[in-house]
Amino acid sequence: MKNIYIIGVGLIGGSIAKDIRHLNPDLIIYGIDSNNAHLDEALTLKIIDAKATFTDLKNADAVIIAIPVDATVSILPNILDLVNEDTLVMEAGSTKAAICKAVENHPKRRNFLATHPIAGTEFSGPKAALEGLFQGKTNIICEVEKTAFKLQERALAIFQIMGMRIRYMNPEAHDKHIAYVSHLSHISAFMLGKTVIEKAKNECDIFDMAGSGFASTVRLAKSSPAMWTPIFKQNKTNVLETLDAYIQNLTNFKNHLESDNYEKIHDEMANTNYIKHILNGIQ
Amino acid sequence: MKNIYIIGVGLIGGSIAKDIRHLNPDLIIYGIDSNNAHLDEALTLKIIDAKATFTDLKNADAVIIAIPVDATVSILPNILDLVNEDTLVMEAGSTKAAICKAVENHPKRRNFLATHPIAGTEFSGPKAALEGLFQGKTNIICEVEKTAFKLQERALAIFQIMGMRIRYMNPEAHDKHIAYVSHLSHISAFMLGKTVIEKAKNECDIFDMAGSGFASTVRLAKSSPAMWTPIFKQNKTNVLETLDAYIQNLTNFKNHLESDNYEKIHDEMANTNYIKHILNGIQ
Repeated sequence: MKNIYIIGVGLIGGSIAKDIRHLNPDLIIYGIDSNNAHLDEALTLKIIDAKATFTDLKNADAVIIAIPVDATVSILPNILDLVNEDTLVMEAGSTKAAICKAVENHPKRRNFLATHPIAGTEFSGPKAALEGLFQGKTNIICEVEKTAFKLQERALAIFQIMGMRIRYMNPEAHDKHIAYVSHLSHISAFMLGKTVIEKAKNECDIFDMAGSGFASTVRLAKSSPAMWTPIFKQNKTNVLETLDAYIQNLTNFKNHLESDNYEKIHDEMANTNYIKHILNGIQ
Repeated sequence: MKNIYIIGVGLIGGSIAKDIRHLNPDLIIYGIDSNNAHLDEALTLKIIDAKATFTDLKNADAVIIAIPVDATVSILPNILDLVNEDTLVMEAGSTKAAICKAVENHPKRRNFLATHPIAGTEFSGPKAALEGLFQGKTNIICEVEKTAFKLQERALAIFQIMGMRIRYMNPEAHDKHIAYVSHLSHISAFMLGKTVIEKAKNECDIFDMAGSGFASTVRLAKSSPAMWTPIFKQNKTNVLETLDAYIQNLTNFKNHLESDNYEKIHDEMANTNYIKHILNGIQ
């Protein structure tokens, strides 16, 4: 691998670029981004070595796409059209079914690998890129059997330098599960933030009283709407299922409180304390 | 101040004890706790210097109560009965109205100061006690005018050594505001944890996909049910109001998603991103 093209030099693309630089001292990392200011920033921060355009992709050994999932669905077929027979094309989107579907019949389907490196922060843009962001984190690979064997190997070399644990899953199972552990958490945080901000309009002291517990619970409400709107759109059915379950559990809790059933409220919390054992396994 | 009695040597009481040790080298910190194993642990960890019982409280210069809020309401009048005319009695509960009400006509009301040092972690017991936990955090003092002036001064010396910012508020305003920034966050996290655990019963891979975002949003679901059940009970009316608002916002979000109103979904998130500016002020 020599020429690597990162499409989207933000938090995820920029962090991947920082890690893969260690792959090979001769590596040249090119950046492509619809936001030219971000490209300049990535160049200044030495995240990329040079700016590039789509017509340069014919020279790529690997292309890594890290842009909103609706844009990925729309440009992924064109990117496969542009690359040569031996190029690995990967993307890092938080949904997998619509993206895999977009290229299922593409003549270069075997050049493509669908991945979801599960890591991030609530920040965005090239300045948010962090070396080591993916270390020890999980990377979900979908439909691995549809990717050419030698390109799978090229991808694994990249994930190894990033320090990721690999899990294989089909796109539908990915989207169903990730709705619970990631997409719902974001909506829960956004709506908590909204509820408190609405209240604070009339009660200006309210945020003086917010402590680290609130900060932690609402943290994901800082995330980028440009990135998250298309995720919720593409994963609509699964996200609606999680929202139904969450709203039902909140309503039940409210009903227990209304009817002074404190034994039940205690038990609901005690049973959920089990989450301790799960979180111990998450970095 | 020489003899300080901590009633409840867990996360909060233990952390206060660790800080106030720096007040004075001659200080003797006594511990009282209904859980004798916790008392032994606090002694071994040198959080307290000696165990004590309620009959010893006549010797106290200051008494600090850090136990579940229902237990505080029930024993606070007895504690005021037992202390001498010159003793400061404080408590650190997450609700204020019921506690202030419980002693409003007590002959020793002027010995009492109602406080809420807003800090904590999701852990509990003496082992969870941390020196410096309260540094830079907010402490809400209620009904300060009802406390004897020289005992106010004694309390402020303690808060100074803990490094706390003081805010004065009436108990009703405290309970109303804290329901939004603290109590609702806990329910939001507990019900998120419950929703995902219920799903995981049938889908065992789900937690393999959980990242740091989920861990942060659900963190408060590790909190102690014994502490939180009485908080929700005492602050029932305000907590129900926050739950209504939160469930309504989640339902509206769900409706926007069902009707494919992605512009609205984007705007809801963009408006809530304002939380960034608020969280910057929270340590």
